[in-house]
Amino acid sequence: MKKPKIVVLGGGTGTFVVLSGLKDKPVELTAIISMMDSGGSNRVLRDEFGLLPTSDIRQCLVALAQDSGDQEILRQLFTYRFHQGVGISGMTFGNLFMAALSDIYKDQVKALEIVQKLLRIKGKILPVTLDDVHLVARYENGHQVVGEHYIDEPRHDGKLRIVEIETIPKARIYPPAKKAILEADLIILGPGDLYTSLIPNLIVEGVRESIRKSKAKKVFIVNLMTKYGQTFGFKASDFILEIEKYLGKKIIDFVLVNSNRDIPKSILKRYEEEKAKLVEDDLKESYFKIIRADFLSPVEVKKAAGDSLKRSILRHDSGKLAKVILDKIVLLS
Amino acid sequence: MKKPKIVVLGGGTGTFVVLSGLKDKPVELTAIISMMDSGGSNRVLRDEFGLLPTSDIRQCLVALAQDSGDQEILRQLFTYRFHQGVGISGMTFGNLFMAALSDIYKDQVKALEIVQKLLRIKGKILPVTLDDVHLVARYENGHQVVGEHYIDEPRHDGKLRIVEIETIPKARIYPPAKKAILEADLIILGPGDLYTSLIPNLIVEGVRESIRKSKAKKVFIVNLMTKYGQTFGFKASDFILEIEKYLGKKIIDFVLVNSNRDIPKSILKRYEEEKAKLVEDDLKESYFKIIRADFLSPVEVKKAAGDSLKRSILRHDSGKLAKVILDKIVLLS
Repeated sequence: MKKPKIVVLGGGTGTFVVLSGLKDKPVELTAIISMMDSGGSNRVLRDEFGLLPTSDIRQCLVALAQDSGDQEILRQLFTYRFHQGVGISGMTFGNLFMAALSDIYKDQVKALEIVQKLLRIKGKILPVTLDDVHLVARYENGHQVVGEHYIDEPRHDGKLRIVEIETIPKARIYPPAKKAILEADLIILGPGDLYTSLIPNLIVEGVRESIRKSKAKKVFIVNLMTKYGQTFGFKASDFILEIEKYLGKKIIDFVLVNSNRDIPKSILKRYEEEKAKLVEDDLKESYFKIIRADFLSPVEVKKAAGDSLKRSILRHDSGKLAKVILDKIVLLS
Repeated sequence: MKKPKIVVLGGGTGTFVVLSGLKDKPVELTAIISMMDSGGSNRVLRDEFGLLPTSDIRQCLVALAQDSGDQEILRQLFTYRFHQGVGISGMTFGNLFMAALSDIYKDQVKALEIVQKLLRIKGKILPVTLDDVHLVARYENGHQVVGEHYIDEPRHDGKLRIVEIETIPKARIYPPAKKAILEADLIILGPGDLYTSLIPNLIVEGVRESIRKSKAKKVFIVNLMTKYGQTFGFKASDFILEIEKYLGKKIIDFVLVNSNRDIPKSILKRYEEEKAKLVEDDLKESYFKIIRADFLSPVEVKKAAGDSLKRSILRHDSGKLAKVILDKIVLLS
């Protein structure tokens, strides 16, 4: 049997989880990753090194790297964040690794290929675009914010809805990403930050058209939690509406929703402090098929030293997601 | 035939050259490296990361790394020096690599072992000491300077002779280095900066005694050029006298001196600007055997971007050195 070609579209930890689960399965994996990060280590890369941001790519590298031998060591290094050294603290080793390689080869795409070889990646990681662009979000009150970083960690009222998101300047799809989407058997969207990880891919010129043209089944994985500044008060149907807004209606074939709502109160309380809640499942059968299952990871995530960003502590379980994707979607398609 | 065990004692580019030449020969190589660097990238490692300096070790890693496949890429990265990024510019990738590994494993020695495996080192690299010490030089006018960096690039009259060099606090030999010296068939000292690369090894407690105890033949390779601030006006015999001062008399069995003095005037002129001259060969037969040969490398050395240190442009030829060491010393011993 030919291995099914699966494209995972996103960036961030949600994509990391999906990739980790599918990595050792008999599938041909391609991760297509947003390139609009602008905070922390990425700001340094962009402003001081003149490179495209690579934090999301770095996470995918770690997800898909071989996990034994030399690669296990490189993998550990790639996730390492310096917490010492003036000007170095806060930088991830992986980003510095990519920056050095990019300078040695005078080509960031070549550097990305080399690093995938070094880490013996199972699959392929492609930037969604090679254009150096920034995200722009427009809010319901008319205000506008430029820069992924400021959308992700808003300095304004995070309850405001984002009514439009785009890039400046326009970004065009990286041709190998287009090819992967067109040839895919399955395209997975999410989970992940809606406006800073998932939709940034969809607004790249050529992505929407390619997804619509592709014969692949399209799967959307609904986030576990809402996020202040992005999806405050969102129910599952709101996520679908937003995806439809950027992708068009009747594109999604499957929607995966977590049904395990048995979460320790202490964790929910920590989310409450960040004005985040479990996403309410208000979905009704529609043109897409809803798959409800326990997708929750039992592992609580710890933050690395030197990491100044907020990170989710509740996550999807990579094994549970992969099992449902393979058994209930790939095998039956 | 059992492979001869060769110990190369030093640090810096001289040691790099010797190791590069012997790397692919049928010998068992151990490099024992001084750990007193204090400038540039090393200062950051010491002061901001609380680690031992690794620049000299890094050079040896590059000299002895496998030069194909993954290792060739890692080798290139290890020599890479950042020239962009506030706080990162000037740092060598190799030092950051070692710093990250040391933090991940909470053990710098373990990190050094891992990196040697990753680079498929031909041979072994050992720090001469694990003690965190600084060099102190006392000059003929009574002045005293603390820190390898300030001895190497003096802010005083560089014609002054160094009358004593020691470490504060005292450093003790790293036991595996002691073992390697005691078991060696051949010990190579130099070439390299006398007071900042070679003698820093000899003043570590246990080194002098081990060398004297070892049945190995001892070879001293005389530098090509004098160096302002260290060996201004030195003739070959002055180098021997200094070595004898720290090692005792009648320890050296062979002295290698370059006999090719056919050096382009343009190069000599550049050295003259730094108050450096060809070392005059005034050696007479003594308890040691003198081997005179053309040891000069025909290649002129270029400086890497971001490198703020002075580097020698005339170097020993690694192939010529290795040939004489093997044919005239190892085979006849």
